[in-house]
Amino acid sequence: MSMRRTPRGSEEARLPTGFRAAGCAAGIKPDGAPDMALLVSDVPAAVAGVFTTNQVQAAPVRLDRERLAGGCARAVIVNSGIANACTGPAGLRDARRTARLAARALGVPESTVFVCSTGSIGRPLPMDRIAGGIARLVPALAEDGGEAASAAIMTTDTRPKRWTVRTRVAGRPVTVCGLAKGAGMIEPNMATMLAFLTTDADVPPRVLQRLLRSAVEATFNRITVDGDRSTNDTVLFLANGLAGGGALGPSSRGWPAFRDAVFETADQLAWMIVRDGEGATKAVTIRVGGARSNAEADRAARSVANSLLVKTAWAGTRPNWGRVMDALGYARARVEEGKVSIRFDGLPAVRAGRAGPADPAALEAVVARPEFTVDIRLGLGRGEAVVRTCNCTEDYVRINR
Amino acid sequence: MSMRRTPRGSEEARLPTGFRAAGCAAGIKPDGAPDMALLVSDVPAAVAGVFTTNQVQAAPVRLDRERLAGGCARAVIVNSGIANACTGPAGLRDARRTARLAARALGVPESTVFVCSTGSIGRPLPMDRIAGGIARLVPALAEDGGEAASAAIMTTDTRPKRWTVRTRVAGRPVTVCGLAKGAGMIEPNMATMLAFLTTDADVPPRVLQRLLRSAVEATFNRITVDGDRSTNDTVLFLANGLAGGGALGPSSRGWPAFRDAVFETADQLAWMIVRDGEGATKAVTIRVGGARSNAEADRAARSVANSLLVKTAWAGTRPNWGRVMDALGYARARVEEGKVSIRFDGLPAVRAGRAGPADPAALEAVVARPEFTVDIRLGLGRGEAVVRTCNCTEDYVRINR
Repeated sequence: MSMRRTPRGSEEARLPTGFRAAGCAAGIKPDGAPDMALLVSDVPAAVAGVFTTNQVQAAPVRLDRERLAGGCARAVIVNSGIANACTGPAGLRDARRTARLAARALGVPESTVFVCSTGSIGRPLPMDRIAGGIARLVPALAEDGGEAASAAIMTTDTRPKRWTVRTRVAGRPVTVCGLAKGAGMIEPNMATMLAFLTTDADVPPRVLQRLLRSAVEATFNRITVDGDRSTNDTVLFLANGLAGGGALGPSSRGWPAFRDAVFETADQLAWMIVRDGEGATKAVTIRVGGARSNAEADRAARSVANSLLVKTAWAGTRPNWGRVMDALGYARARVEEGKVSIRFDGLPAVRAGRAGPADPAALEAVVARPEFTVDIRLGLGRGEAVVRTCNCTEDYVRINR
Repeated sequence: MSMRRTPRGSEEARLPTGFRAAGCAAGIKPDGAPDMALLVSDVPAAVAGVFTTNQVQAAPVRLDRERLAGGCARAVIVNSGIANACTGPAGLRDARRTARLAARALGVPESTVFVCSTGSIGRPLPMDRIAGGIARLVPALAEDGGEAASAAIMTTDTRPKRWTVRTRVAGRPVTVCGLAKGAGMIEPNMATMLAFLTTDADVPPRVLQRLLRSAVEATFNRITVDGDRSTNDTVLFLANGLAGGGALGPSSRGWPAFRDAVFETADQLAWMIVRDGEGATKAVTIRVGGARSNAEADRAARSVANSLLVKTAWAGTRPNWGRVMDALGYARARVEEGKVSIRFDGLPAVRAGRAGPADPAALEAVVARPEFTVDIRLGLGRGEAVVRTCNCTEDYVRINR
């Protein structure tokens, strides 16, 4: 989350050279909304992936982990509506069969097809509809199909999440494009979150994996909507090299520009996920400084970011810094009440553990904003961390009941 | 939570011999509701206390911790509406002054007066109103004042919480009476929870402290409403010995009867707190068995009990066992998906990690009940734990926004 510089990209899905995508309604969702997407690279692409740390892992996650070892991807087939999680060996067979059907329709090796699912846990995939969806997706593949694909992966998202950065890497035009879905069950490491990054840069799988891991750590793993970590979280990154210019690595001349484009894309998508958190009306950045270590700063920030009392306070307009103090006090991080200071968008709400000089009405005006930052100083060391969260409204409960 | 045997007591506040209490409206709460309570023993009582583990501790908690060393109490003065937390040295002075005013009005040593506060964090106590309240409470003290006292300590509680067990200890009648308040910011270790236990049994302070600690561990520390741990949690236990019969200890003939009465009282109060959780309409017992250790069972149970997605699912009538599986998967406890089984009031929702044979409509009928039990077997060892929680409704958000 170091990125807060002016973004260079834009909120659109302009796929890099050699990528095509499509979305369709395959009848998995009862309401007839789009529920299947396909993303294809015309040539074999290097692939990297980061997956949920939940011990209960959906069948497609287990399949993709296995396939990642090959380092090569041609396609990603995605369905929304059903997560294919807690479905046992039959679920794994369904995931494999989904990949096989897509591979055959595309004429690519089965081992290069990745599968993602998101939706309800515990229900089997309706394989006839999956097959029908694939039959419709393949002929619909198009260079401008990113928008349709990003719409088809939504669940409780209210809007699709897309970001594209077009940059120059060592003189050649390179595109990084990301599509994501989020909304609920969002907690670092990671979320009911699917994200697909694509680029036409040429990056070897191992380099791509390290880059993706560090980008996820700085972005997707620093957001929280409800503290629940899903069974299906997957971030995949495909690099097909069609921009030319030779393989990139950390010592390449063009690396900083490329790395920035990737971090910006991940950061923008992560921020969109928080802003579109289920029922959320406010996106809040929690910064903690002065902790004994970065790890303690992180725990303190997450304790505040996940406190239900803090998040519901911000459903109204009361800053309720007392609840922030309370959440800091039970974080697994050293906190000395008398050394804590808290600012809301710069206004001193707490100084030395007590009510600060900020005018209560001015503080309420900050909390009424759709985005604000809470800056917490612990006064104990140099550890720092940033976590992004959203408020918790009645709508969150309504959506999830 | 081993207690689930038929209770011997009743939901009333019949103070033990030699205790008197009172409640009044001192004008601390803006709506004029009762907001001060006083509890007095006519003779010096042994005292034990368990306090919040939050690093941010309210002034009265700091004062009471200090006073506990003396082992002797004559009175507890309580206010609701303002927590006197995050109020710095001035807050501690106010807590001391509150004790002093009560001590003078009662004619008892100041060091034997304990102070408790609950309510908003960060605001100073209105000391003129506190003084006025004390002046009204002292003449109102009565043997049957427990009900008024329990009503005056409520904050967002919808009903007072009281329990009395009258038993015989080695042939003599002994009473254990508990008054409590709960509602929000409830998470083990402990809660915005105040509880006052009294008995006329004769128990030395150190024995009383060990007994209280084990009772709290088994009851108040095994409930959760919202996972937020407060700055003010306090459980005090006063034993004035007026029942006679000599000092009790673990090897006394009457000990089992007395211990049971204490555990039952704490257990009943804890259960009332869960049932009256802010906005809650359902109280749920989460039992975990087959974990690798009791500690892991505890973590798994708390992960489920605090999952916002689980709690909101139960705001409706869907069992949503998939969310239970998800919460188990991210618990800091070993979980193997294929070995997990889950029952809702005995109905098999999950077997071997997959949908069990229970009829979905029957499962929905369980989740529609005001109380139900979710039994989780991990199949990995002999560790077990029980945690009690409640559902999370729109009203929770409405109350806290």
